[in-house]
Amino acid sequence: MTNFAAADAVISRRLESTLEELRQLVAHPSYSGEGQGMQACADFVARMLEARGFQTQQVPSAGHPVVFGLRPGPAGSPTLLLYNHYDVQPAGPAELWASPPFDLTVRDGCAFGRGAVDDKGHILCRLAAIDALLEADGELPCTVKFIIEGDEEGENVHLPDFVARHAGLLAADACLWEAGGVNHLGAPECHAGMRGIVYVELRLTTASQDAHSGLGGSIFPNAAWRLVWALNSLKGPDEHIRLPGFYDRVRPPTARDLELLAALPDSSQDLLHTYGLRGFIKGLRAGVEVQSEAVFSPTCTLCGLTSGYQGPGCMTVLPAQASAKIDFRLVPDQDPSEVLQQLRVHLDSHGFDDVEIIDLGKEAPGRSDPDHPFLRLVADSAEEVYGVRQLIAPMTGGSGPYHAFIHHLGVPIATVGIGYPGMQMHAPNEHFRLGDFVAGTRHTARVLARFGAGA
Amino acid sequence: MTNFAAADAVISRRLESTLEELRQLVAHPSYSGEGQGMQACADFVARMLEARGFQTQQVPSAGHPVVFGLRPGPAGSPTLLLYNHYDVQPAGPAELWASPPFDLTVRDGCAFGRGAVDDKGHILCRLAAIDALLEADGELPCTVKFIIEGDEEGENVHLPDFVARHAGLLAADACLWEAGGVNHLGAPECHAGMRGIVYVELRLTTASQDAHSGLGGSIFPNAAWRLVWALNSLKGPDEHIRLPGFYDRVRPPTARDLELLAALPDSSQDLLHTYGLRGFIKGLRAGVEVQSEAVFSPTCTLCGLTSGYQGPGCMTVLPAQASAKIDFRLVPDQDPSEVLQQLRVHLDSHGFDDVEIIDLGKEAPGRSDPDHPFLRLVADSAEEVYGVRQLIAPMTGGSGPYHAFIHHLGVPIATVGIGYPGMQMHAPNEHFRLGDFVAGTRHTARVLARFGAGA
Repeated sequence: MTNFAAADAVISRRLESTLEELRQLVAHPSYSGEGQGMQACADFVARMLEARGFQTQQVPSAGHPVVFGLRPGPAGSPTLLLYNHYDVQPAGPAELWASPPFDLTVRDGCAFGRGAVDDKGHILCRLAAIDALLEADGELPCTVKFIIEGDEEGENVHLPDFVARHAGLLAADACLWEAGGVNHLGAPECHAGMRGIVYVELRLTTASQDAHSGLGGSIFPNAAWRLVWALNSLKGPDEHIRLPGFYDRVRPPTARDLELLAALPDSSQDLLHTYGLRGFIKGLRAGVEVQSEAVFSPTCTLCGLTSGYQGPGCMTVLPAQASAKIDFRLVPDQDPSEVLQQLRVHLDSHGFDDVEIIDLGKEAPGRSDPDHPFLRLVADSAEEVYGVRQLIAPMTGGSGPYHAFIHHLGVPIATVGIGYPGMQMHAPNEHFRLGDFVAGTRHTARVLARFGAGA
Repeated sequence: MTNFAAADAVISRRLESTLEELRQLVAHPSYSGEGQGMQACADFVARMLEARGFQTQQVPSAGHPVVFGLRPGPAGSPTLLLYNHYDVQPAGPAELWASPPFDLTVRDGCAFGRGAVDDKGHILCRLAAIDALLEADGELPCTVKFIIEGDEEGENVHLPDFVARHAGLLAADACLWEAGGVNHLGAPECHAGMRGIVYVELRLTTASQDAHSGLGGSIFPNAAWRLVWALNSLKGPDEHIRLPGFYDRVRPPTARDLELLAALPDSSQDLLHTYGLRGFIKGLRAGVEVQSEAVFSPTCTLCGLTSGYQGPGCMTVLPAQASAKIDFRLVPDQDPSEVLQQLRVHLDSHGFDDVEIIDLGKEAPGRSDPDHPFLRLVADSAEEVYGVRQLIAPMTGGSGPYHAFIHHLGVPIATVGIGYPGMQMHAPNEHFRLGDFVAGTRHTARVLARFGAGA
């Protein structure tokens, strides 16, 4: 059995060199949207794996190459799949960064840089855990596979197809998700599911050119008005989503789900304060009723509206075009393709067959059993490192290719990592706290060791 | 009685020097919005009037100075008020102009330049008519007043207040509007009324910052959705405007109005073609039913929508702010201030007291009696010049400070001018046809002469 005291000591002793390696990885400005430096970054990631004895390959995908790594463990040992990504968000406005975004900078006990937590820091956290086990034990206790993709942040969501096509290569007994960490109270928190998503743009063209409102106001169709009416037909102030059959496959939370939610800290008042809200919708007030609605109900969110004149003052124009961005978040067992069909049927049957639907991306909802032995193992390991029991959120509100791993590989998924709520993910001054990095790495090492030991 | 043959000959002989004077006026790039060159342009306009024996003053207003000119006619003669403006629209994209916008350029029988027709060419048309009468008769047959404002194109609509405050100075027996001309068949056409307008922006703020749609989609208020619902409450697909009492003061067209509309060419198929429409709204098809609805019904036109993410692809944002631009066109006897109140009452009573209304400008609707002796005089004069009877549109769909002149000065208003439908008003390559300029000037001279003669 692993000597965790020795492994922990290695993690602390090697922290400087781990951060130096992360600094080199962050220096690759790998925005997948622009394709900038993607191949160089994939090569660097592969070399990092090879330095730990992994056999690697760069597997072609519909987007950037997927770095796959395999390090066989002892004969008969189980296989743990680690999911990460090497692409990052663009840095955004340079003047909002206190240090250069692609030059990892440690100050005030934190490491700042684009990708510091999302997701390059998590790649290094896992490699540092592997380094510690190799130095402490001379061996890894299980087979480890890495799948590190290059299109997580962009719009080219092809991972579900990739996982389906390479199910043999990726076959495993359990999976660690790309990220994890502690909540705003410092307690480790894991989530066991993600909502799905259907992101569409609705577009309307009612004329070949805009008209003067004095000329056409009484007699011409108006794209902005038709868009308003089409949208209003989708959802009214009662917040009920009116697509035919939309709610048919929705599974309500179980008693166990509600029990797990009740054990989480109640963030509702923080949310009201942070976002300056007068209150929640649907008469929601606080506690489990808010947390349950937030993750177990599907949504139809208007993300954007565009039509006609949008500058200062007046322009008396009658718009020929209008569009809206809409994101539907789906819960188990809703199906993204079915929802897209329901949207088309709904619009047609309400007289809006002139509204074009542009499919901008879909992912299915997915969840693991929060009481699966692997999730218990992760929670037990967390308690050793953090001194408090890991909390399990049965679902989160966000979306990701969770479903693909569960559906095609049949693995349970847990989250372990270095994040905390103030980490500025996707924003300027993205960072992690060094203490969280060390704790997340110790946690990862324990998960690997216990998983290999079959405990 | 004026020798019209002599006056017409003067107009033709002096055309070159008239265009040269217009060239100097157009060279002043007087966009009222930016205040560029406004005072120099006002000074130049005043000097042009003084050169014809007008006493001038530049009367301060809430915007740029209003140039007022007075040239007394024979004792006891009636007074004709000429309304014009010296401000212009910005030139817009320079590369879309075939010749420099502020250098009046004659080619292919047309004169091109910003303000060529709107409205500097009309100022010169009137001055050329006065020149012709002075040379032919040595005298003007009536008292002539000019009111030439500098804020017609901008958002600072203060002319109604100005007219009310200076009703004594402006007192007259009849008024010629700033523009006029021929329709697409080359026949002179006059309009006897303009709709009013209430232009507002509706603004909503539901949170202090945007949220991630995965976080707030099920529980946060969404400014874009609330805007959609507020707008939908104003007008549904039936096109009925739901403000309380909105239609109470609407006067339907009279039998005479419909008779006048029936005499106009039917432009409905041209409109469908020009704007690439599949059809009109409200089941309208062609002819008088379209023309009557187009000008005698009030509107609620969505001119613009803005909220959240509007770029390419996806952004999973839940918007904290949303806004819409709306223009209500009003018909006699609707009252702009009353409509603004109705809008507030409507929004409040439908649960949208969080929607802010920003008043961006108002004008009342107004119309002259199309059978007023002055309008008949203008039509008779037109027939002499154009060889065909002038058509009278009892209303137009556009808006202007028409009501102020009718209400505060009690004058009938007619339109005479140099325009035609292809003149590119407000667009690059604005121009008039030289033949229209000559005809409009001859027409103006006849109107002055007959009006002075009391016929």
